[in-house]
Amino acid sequence: MPDTPPIALDAMGGDNAPGETVAGAVHAVRDLGVPVVLVGQPRPLYEALAAHDATTEIPIVRAEETLSMDEGALASLRRPRSSVAVACHLVRRGDAAAVVSAGSTAAVVATGRLRLRAQQGVLRPAIAVTLPTVPTPTILLDAGATADVKPEMLVQFAQLGVAYGETALGLRDPRVGLLTIGSETEKGNKLARRAHELLSNTAGLDFAGNIEGHDLLSGKVDVIVTDGFTGNVALKTMEGSVRYALAELREAIAESRPARLGALLQRRPLRRLARRLDPEQYGGAVLLGLNGTVVIAHGAAKARGIGAACALAATLAAKGIVARIGERIAATRAHNRLW
Amino acid sequence: MPDTPPIALDAMGGDNAPGETVAGAVHAVRDLGVPVVLVGQPRPLYEALAAHDATTEIPIVRAEETLSMDEGALASLRRPRSSVAVACHLVRRGDAAAVVSAGSTAAVVATGRLRLRAQQGVLRPAIAVTLPTVPTPTILLDAGATADVKPEMLVQFAQLGVAYGETALGLRDPRVGLLTIGSETEKGNKLARRAHELLSNTAGLDFAGNIEGHDLLSGKVDVIVTDGFTGNVALKTMEGSVRYALAELREAIAESRPARLGALLQRRPLRRLARRLDPEQYGGAVLLGLNGTVVIAHGAAKARGIGAACALAATLAAKGIVARIGERIAATRAHNRLW
Repeated sequence: MPDTPPIALDAMGGDNAPGETVAGAVHAVRDLGVPVVLVGQPRPLYEALAAHDATTEIPIVRAEETLSMDEGALASLRRPRSSVAVACHLVRRGDAAAVVSAGSTAAVVATGRLRLRAQQGVLRPAIAVTLPTVPTPTILLDAGATADVKPEMLVQFAQLGVAYGETALGLRDPRVGLLTIGSETEKGNKLARRAHELLSNTAGLDFAGNIEGHDLLSGKVDVIVTDGFTGNVALKTMEGSVRYALAELREAIAESRPARLGALLQRRPLRRLARRLDPEQYGGAVLLGLNGTVVIAHGAAKARGIGAACALAATLAAKGIVARIGERIAATRAHNRLW
Repeated sequence: MPDTPPIALDAMGGDNAPGETVAGAVHAVRDLGVPVVLVGQPRPLYEALAAHDATTEIPIVRAEETLSMDEGALASLRRPRSSVAVACHLVRRGDAAAVVSAGSTAAVVATGRLRLRAQQGVLRPAIAVTLPTVPTPTILLDAGATADVKPEMLVQFAQLGVAYGETALGLRDPRVGLLTIGSETEKGNKLARRAHELLSNTAGLDFAGNIEGHDLLSGKVDVIVTDGFTGNVALKTMEGSVRYALAELREAIAESRPARLGALLQRRPLRRLARRLDPEQYGGAVLLGLNGTVVIAHGAAKARGIGAACALAATLAAKGIVARIGERIAATRAHNRLW
């Protein structure tokens, strides 16, 4: 894709930056055919590129400041020339197609909101994550961008999620579920009850009704909509619970000699399972609703995870997710005016 | 305990009533030494007791109406003589020490609120559940009684949870954590931020600060406080995720011959693990904050689960949990007046 603008990779963000971010960029360019530009401090980035013999393949854009992993939303205001801010700026100017960062989620969201701004008609951005359901993944949003929401925002999150499902996962007419408590309409809190009403009356949306926490991994719907507070708690609870179950299992197996022997015989299927349940494998989080797409890779991402995030960002940009979201939001607004 | 009033068991509530509820009562009386009175339709209850040769051991209190498992909160208003309503009435009159029901949670909560009323000073009741952490369980509340809360209610939930931990689990000075997103103080939604402030300033409470979803099963704190909406989503997400991980594991193991052989060698530890992660095993949910304790057994509970719920109810009543909660709530109010 010689004419495509490159992906702007925040090469300083993440626990393993810049070593793994640069290795990920090299992987994206060489193995996945995704053009990348590195944003960050030129010296260490040049050295890391040199180690891969890639100094002529991948350009560097200077950004002297860096947001560390333990910095929150406020730091992004204090540092307008951070690597992730400069990456956003490249997208704003049309010099890059999308942003990838493995930096602290709070800082990336705050910087993205400030530098890219919400796209027209979008009230608040949302973070979409994909859960490892079969046969197709399930999209959960918002996973933490907007903690306090109004019911109208949840309807927009549904539109963002549908556009994401169609663009990134090739889903056709994704079914949307509202995360709440109890499956009856009258259940839930005030927010969920009102959102249920609005979602039921939104044209062009396949709304399947309420779903509960235990449906998160059941594949019952394609897009799960919730506020950023509940979504983040649910996502982290899910990750923690799966980790807990597998750890308990390992402990149970280590207890007896026949069980240990048994584990040896199962090594391969167990390893495959652990891989499938690994958050780094099932894809990055995507910040949707801004004038430009930001893929937030896992903070601990290695080269492969960074490369996959760059490829996802390139796909979303090539398929015009921002325009698609714009159409959906405009259609809902037009419908609501007539209705 | 010949002088203790009996536990009022809603013998008609639950998927397996009255067969398993009556068997559970027999188990409680004979094996656990807990006096029980059955509440429900005399004919089927008498027959079920006869099958255990227990018609003279366990009294029956008549309640002709029954709330079915798919009925919600409204049904409890329409049926003032339901078995769970009559059970509450027995506690109100002092003829029973506490209520146990395996009926639909929504109906039991609504009936309990209506018949027992909130105890003095308590703004809203909360459902406490115990999570299978080691070495001691963790209490999560509210798991779904009050979906829309004010920050002051979360402080009261902390007091309810501490009283429960001390009474039911023998914990000393339980540490309290607030479930939110991000561990920094400024993170979370408006509700969580204000609750954090209030909890930090509550005397007599060991407040350990914010915790996140992945800490639910880490045993980091003894009592986890949240609103009933978030708590219910988190609890069901946890249950669904553990079930998902174990199912995926079974599938992974079934795939290859050596792995299947391996599974055979591990049968015993795996079974023990499944038991530990079974919600029915790690105890019922308890509705706290009313003038009388209501233990909500799992809807699918068998005799052993019902018996355990009766024993828990008897312990809570014998140790005076209602009075303990009253003291804690009064102390907080007095402190806040002075402060």
